[in-house]
Amino acid sequence: MDFSVSDSTREMLDKAQAFVDDRLIPLEPEVMGRDWPDIEPQLNELRAEVKKMGMWAPNLPAEVGGMGLSLMDLALLSEVMGQTPFGHFSFGAQAPDAGNMELLLEFGTEDQKERFLKPLAAGEIRSCFSMTDKNTAGSNPTLLKATAVRDGDEYVINGHKWFTSSYDGSAFTVVMAVTNPEAEKHLRASMIIVPSDQDGVEFVRNAPVMGHPGSGWFSHAELKYHDVRVPAANMLGPEGQGFLLAQKRLGPGRIHHCMRWLGICKRAQKLLCRRALEREVADGQMLADQQAVQFWIAENAAEIEAARSMVLKAAWTGDTYGFKAARNEIGMIKYFVAGVLQRVVDRALQAHGALGMTDDTVLAWYYREERAARIYDGPDEVHKRTVARHELGRAMASG
Amino acid sequence: MDFSVSDSTREMLDKAQAFVDDRLIPLEPEVMGRDWPDIEPQLNELRAEVKKMGMWAPNLPAEVGGMGLSLMDLALLSEVMGQTPFGHFSFGAQAPDAGNMELLLEFGTEDQKERFLKPLAAGEIRSCFSMTDKNTAGSNPTLLKATAVRDGDEYVINGHKWFTSSYDGSAFTVVMAVTNPEAEKHLRASMIIVPSDQDGVEFVRNAPVMGHPGSGWFSHAELKYHDVRVPAANMLGPEGQGFLLAQKRLGPGRIHHCMRWLGICKRAQKLLCRRALEREVADGQMLADQQAVQFWIAENAAEIEAARSMVLKAAWTGDTYGFKAARNEIGMIKYFVAGVLQRVVDRALQAHGALGMTDDTVLAWYYREERAARIYDGPDEVHKRTVARHELGRAMASG
Amino acid sequence: MDFSVSDSTREMLDKAQAFVDDRLIPLEPEVMGRDWPDIEPQLNELRAEVKKMGMWAPNLPAEVGGMGLSLMDLALLSEVMGQTPFGHFSFGAQAPDAGNMELLLEFGTEDQKERFLKPLAAGEIRSCFSMTDKNTAGSNPTLLKATAVRDGDEYVINGHKWFTSSYDGSAFTVVMAVTNPEAEKHLRASMIIVPSDQDGVEFVRNAPVMGHPGSGWFSHAELKYHDVRVPAANMLGPEGQGFLLAQKRLGPGRIHHCMRWLGICKRAQKLLCRRALEREVADGQMLADQQAVQFWIAENAAEIEAARSMVLKAAWTGDTYGFKAARNEIGMIKYFVAGVLQRVVDRALQAHGALGMTDDTVLAWYYREERAARIYDGPDEVHKRTVARHELGRAMASG
Amino acid sequence: MDFSVSDSTREMLDKAQAFVDDRLIPLEPEVMGRDWPDIEPQLNELRAEVKKMGMWAPNLPAEVGGMGLSLMDLALLSEVMGQTPFGHFSFGAQAPDAGNMELLLEFGTEDQKERFLKPLAAGEIRSCFSMTDKNTAGSNPTLLKATAVRDGDEYVINGHKWFTSSYDGSAFTVVMAVTNPEAEKHLRASMIIVPSDQDGVEFVRNAPVMGHPGSGWFSHAELKYHDVRVPAANMLGPEGQGFLLAQKRLGPGRIHHCMRWLGICKRAQKLLCRRALEREVADGQMLADQQAVQFWIAENAAEIEAARSMVLKAAWTGDTYGFKAARNEIGMIKYFVAGVLQRVVDRALQAHGALGMTDDTVLAWYYREERAARIYDGPDEVHKRTVARHELGRAMASG
Repeated sequence: MDFSVSDSTREMLDKAQAFVDDRLIPLEPEVMGRDWPDIEPQLNELRAEVKKMGMWAPNLPAEVGGMGLSLMDLALLSEVMGQTPFGHFSFGAQAPDAGNMELLLEFGTEDQKERFLKPLAAGEIRSCFSMTDKNTAGSNPTLLKATAVRDGDEYVINGHKWFTSSYDGSAFTVVMAVTNPEAEKHLRASMIIVPSDQDGVEFVRNAPVMGHPGSGWFSHAELKYHDVRVPAANMLGPEGQGFLLAQKRLGPGRIHHCMRWLGICKRAQKLLCRRALEREVADGQMLADQQAVQFWIAENAAEIEAARSMVLKAAWTGDTYGFKAARNEIGMIKYFVAGVLQRVVDRALQAHGALGMTDDTVLAWYYREERAARIYDGPDEVHKRTVARHELGRAMASG
Repeated sequence: MDFSVSDSTREMLDKAQAFVDDRLIPLEPEVMGRDWPDIEPQLNELRAEVKKMGMWAPNLPAEVGGMGLSLMDLALLSEVMGQTPFGHFSFGAQAPDAGNMELLLEFGTEDQKERFLKPLAAGEIRSCFSMTDKNTAGSNPTLLKATAVRDGDEYVINGHKWFTSSYDGSAFTVVMAVTNPEAEKHLRASMIIVPSDQDGVEFVRNAPVMGHPGSGWFSHAELKYHDVRVPAANMLGPEGQGFLLAQKRLGPGRIHHCMRWLGICKRAQKLLCRRALEREVADGQMLADQQAVQFWIAENAAEIEAARSMVLKAAWTGDTYGFKAARNEIGMIKYFVAGVLQRVVDRALQAHGALGMTDDTVLAWYYREERAARIYDGPDEVHKRTVARHELGRAMASG
Repeated sequence: MDFSVSDSTREMLDKAQAFVDDRLIPLEPEVMGRDWPDIEPQLNELRAEVKKMGMWAPNLPAEVGGMGLSLMDLALLSEVMGQTPFGHFSFGAQAPDAGNMELLLEFGTEDQKERFLKPLAAGEIRSCFSMTDKNTAGSNPTLLKATAVRDGDEYVINGHKWFTSSYDGSAFTVVMAVTNPEAEKHLRASMIIVPSDQDGVEFVRNAPVMGHPGSGWFSHAELKYHDVRVPAANMLGPEGQGFLLAQKRLGPGRIHHCMRWLGICKRAQKLLCRRALEREVADGQMLADQQAVQFWIAENAAEIEAARSMVLKAAWTGDTYGFKAARNEIGMIKYFVAGVLQRVVDRALQAHGALGMTDDTVLAWYYREERAARIYDGPDEVHKRTVARHELGRAMASG
Repeated sequence: MDFSVSDSTREMLDKAQAFVDDRLIPLEPEVMGRDWPDIEPQLNELRAEVKKMGMWAPNLPAEVGGMGLSLMDLALLSEVMGQTPFGHFSFGAQAPDAGNMELLLEFGTEDQKERFLKPLAAGEIRSCFSMTDKNTAGSNPTLLKATAVRDGDEYVINGHKWFTSSYDGSAFTVVMAVTNPEAEKHLRASMIIVPSDQDGVEFVRNAPVMGHPGSGWFSHAELKYHDVRVPAANMLGPEGQGFLLAQKRLGPGRIHHCMRWLGICKRAQKLLCRRALEREVADGQMLADQQAVQFWIAENAAEIEAARSMVLKAAWTGDTYGFKAARNEIGMIKYFVAGVLQRVVDRALQAHGALGMTDDTVLAWYYREERAARIYDGPDEVHKRTVARHELGRAMASG
């Protein structure tokens, strides 16, 4: 067993950390809480800096302009980028584009790569992923209602979706729709690329999430598809394989989410420690002298260390034996780390008192926005059931 | 022992509940998330309806136009009003005005009552309470930095405050400032009434809380006081008694907060149950059929029942033996019920999945705004210390 | 609403508390951990003292030699007796005899009352309750396997039971067995009185519970019934009504269990506070000065207060509207208070360090023995499901 | 990073696992709960088998008859041995002997090694460690009261100790006593080897722990030292270095404790899964079909995986950079894994219902005995404080 990080990886991480500390975090007060059109130019300048540093698109292979990292190195970098809300965006590794790029890379036709992947990888356009039906349990893919019916050389799409994150300002949308209603449950749906401004795509609204409709990349659209027609060549991957592609998309994604959350945890812990060291609570007594605060710090530290170790192990399993082998570990990290995230941020917020409720620190932002961590990409409940089945299966097998 | 509620109280509560259900809750989608000036007219119409119903100002005695309720009845009503974010406002019982009215009623001069209490009680003006210094631990009143220096017939106030909630649009502010710096720790500060537009009061900003600066009644101002001069007659209560008055203000207030939180819990539980009954998660299987969801419902129910019973007991102790006798019980309910509130709302949100993150239900609002319950009016940590001392004192006394 | 306790009740409770403090607690080191035959004489002397004090059999009406208390007064007394492991036994209110007496009182024939209730109420004999089948989920009564077949004037009983608590040394056993296998699920079983030494009753062992087989009253027998014949007149209550009787037996019993647990909590909290006041952890610094310990005390205090208030409310509902009306409240207190018990004892144990692991305090005893509180009389999981159904039903009814 | 286990290590672990499964676990019902003299012969036979297998004394280097394992391999083996209460004893790696052997190996004189280490390493004698004063906070070593005064060629020891585990039947005791009362706090005490039957050593009792005084290796003696004289040559390590030696003894020991606890967790999880698969709770419905039980399994799995990953990382840090570098990680695992242990065992017990309370499974044993995990070798509270200081120090250093 070896937990060391190579010198070259360490160097890469240090460079990213310095960028996060020196360029991104100081910008937070300026960009957070503002509309996307107002901050996009500034973020684009940061992206230009990242490109110059040679750290653009860490999730992509070198041949399409990325850093060509192993999954482990990408995971470690995700932790660094996660320490600030616009970290991933600045490095060109933000959801939902990152997942779409990975799909296009693996399953896209040459034409799709040229038209969609290339500008996306260059950061020239944005994309989105339109999966969750309105009024249908997203945790159960077999309930999917949106349909895409083949009509000659086209598909005709109808449906009502929401949480199509980042639709606002995007160039195209990967839509999940039922193409094969008679097929076996998991082989009914397909992914189809739809230009975001295609006729029949109705933008209902950006759903207000935690008090904000948001805008641009930071938004979650509700969309209606009314007889939206796209060429059959826009099918991404084989017909009926939508769920399988989605699983492929989500597997590594969960590892990077978890490491991003751990970046948030590190940031929260750092803020908590600094607050404890600087805040006087009585004559000569600092917050850091209070045992309750010390215990929060110690509980955070241990939970972060435990979560981080297990995520790295899952990344190693994926790197070494493939994601199918890592499936159970990935299920576990999803709910375990999301729980750690919620508790760590909550403790840090409490230690800040009234200040913690304000947007004068980044904690309130993480507190409300990242509540979703226990919900998106499969809620806790779904992953727990899956892990339990795996454990029970092993117990049965071992007699 | 008798846990029954009299018929007349029951009737009063039913009337209020019907108003909440029929008039206030349906309005939520329209008023939540909008600016104060846009919704004030609508809320004022509701207030007029409440007045017609004879339920205006439930926290005030009949002689100043209120309902003249016992503390217990007011607590029970607070639970009803708490089920919607604008409940207390609609009945004229909203913080911070309610506390200010209670202070003016008990400690105000005739002149102060005429000029400040009367229009406040009538709902014609709004007020605020300017206590928390910026950059000073509000949990330790002896660290207070704002000053009010007597100069002839005037006080000259200097300081930097924040979380002066509802300053925006208010007529006057009750300011807490050190008047007697040499006195014993708890006798240093006084309360002084300051017209909100007085010269020298600098409105720095409405502090952004959980993503929103807010406006009007729903805002939390940061203010600087630069040599603000007010007549000495604006002193509220005796000089040096500021903290004692604050304690008097907060004691009953904590009971009503707790009952308001329990109103929120009831609402959250109701939303959770309905969601569970309506949401299909698989063919023919509803969310309500899932054991994990059943357990959330059962844990909510038990925690709410426990919290409610103890709050009512504290109210009874206050009614019967006075608030000093109820002090320890009030300390306990403050952190216990705030904890229940956080857990109950969190479970309800989780049960709603992605919908829970949006403002399409009231849960996201309660989730982010009421995180403050564990902080305002004394954070958990302060009340726990006080209760522990009390328990240890009793143990010492009993040998 | 009125949370006061009448003077006469207060006097009764004070008398009992003094007896617990002065006579029972000092005896703990002598009696705990020893065999039943060695301690029974001492306990019988204590029982004689209780009889002289006029406090014998608090759960029985005056006409059969009891105190004739209301359910509320009995609940309050149960809390006092619960503060020491042999409290209920000393007052003649111990399980399983108390429940059996209540059954005999309500459903026994005159002959049964004469032969079984009378000596039991006098404390001359002990009894037991043989319900739980070995290897069958006790939480689901419809799985019951033991049978009683009518043969002329007799029932012939066969079965394999365990957790027949206090069988060792008992005079009779109330056996639950299926008499009507074809009836509707809840009408299949009956209760039958079986002399403990009847032919065919095989004493397999006292099951070792938490390291101890125990003996006498403090034991849990595993029994096999091999064609055990008893007169048909030994049927307790109507044939097929076993489960209904069991529910009647358990309803009030759960309230008294909960109050007993709260007595344990009070004892644990007292021990924790004293330990905190007496234990030096550094020069001049006591355990009580540590914030973590203060928080344990405060959390205990609040949880106890909340739990106690809700149990008293459930008792009042039962007293006022009958136990059917109190059913949901009783369900909630069962799991809520059992959880409080576990946490409170755990915190007190931790505060005692290594001493907490030893039997030099009563905490280790409560820690291990009362772990069963979350299991007996229906595990948490069963009560949570029932409460959830009730809440969902209400939500459905209210539209 | 590399989480793989070498083939030779895997083979070694598999051999040990087979021995645990085939030889040790089946013996549990026979040996648990019985007196030491009755079971020692059987355990000695098992030890002979282990020696034949070449797996004796895994914590010792090959030159003194051990397996010569790295710390990582020993940690992994500790997890296997931990799955049954007599695992470590059977392999000759049990506390307190293991720690004493490590001390003698590193600090013992040649004579001490010959007389004490050699027979101990061969499993011919047993030893104990007499550190914790009665009535003094063991968590604060500077409060130590026992003294050893130099008198010519001898030390004269006086003191009152308890939790001298395994004294009963031991050949010698390593006693911690103050030799240099005037020295700097951490340089006051020394370790001295005392023959267990030396004149003046008064065996007060085996302290009853969780209901059992125990006997032999499985006991915790209370001892008084009355002017006990031993040769100065019995000093272990340099005078005044007792605490430093103790830290050396405890550091690796904590890693092995944690892995032992994880062995317990694995066992508990296995028992829980099997129970879930075998227990019918309704017609055709198994415990494993209940979502609450699935969630317990999933939470156990994730907590075990997280805990295990972090412990292995701490072991790697110790192996690679030395124990000083691993200190903070070791502090974290101590309280984190002890917490996991308590929760995992508790869930498994609950899933077993009444059976879980009995000694018919090993769960009740682990539940009560291993409650001590949060107390021995430094309670949670001490380690949390240390970790918090480390985190705060890092935050201060990083500005």
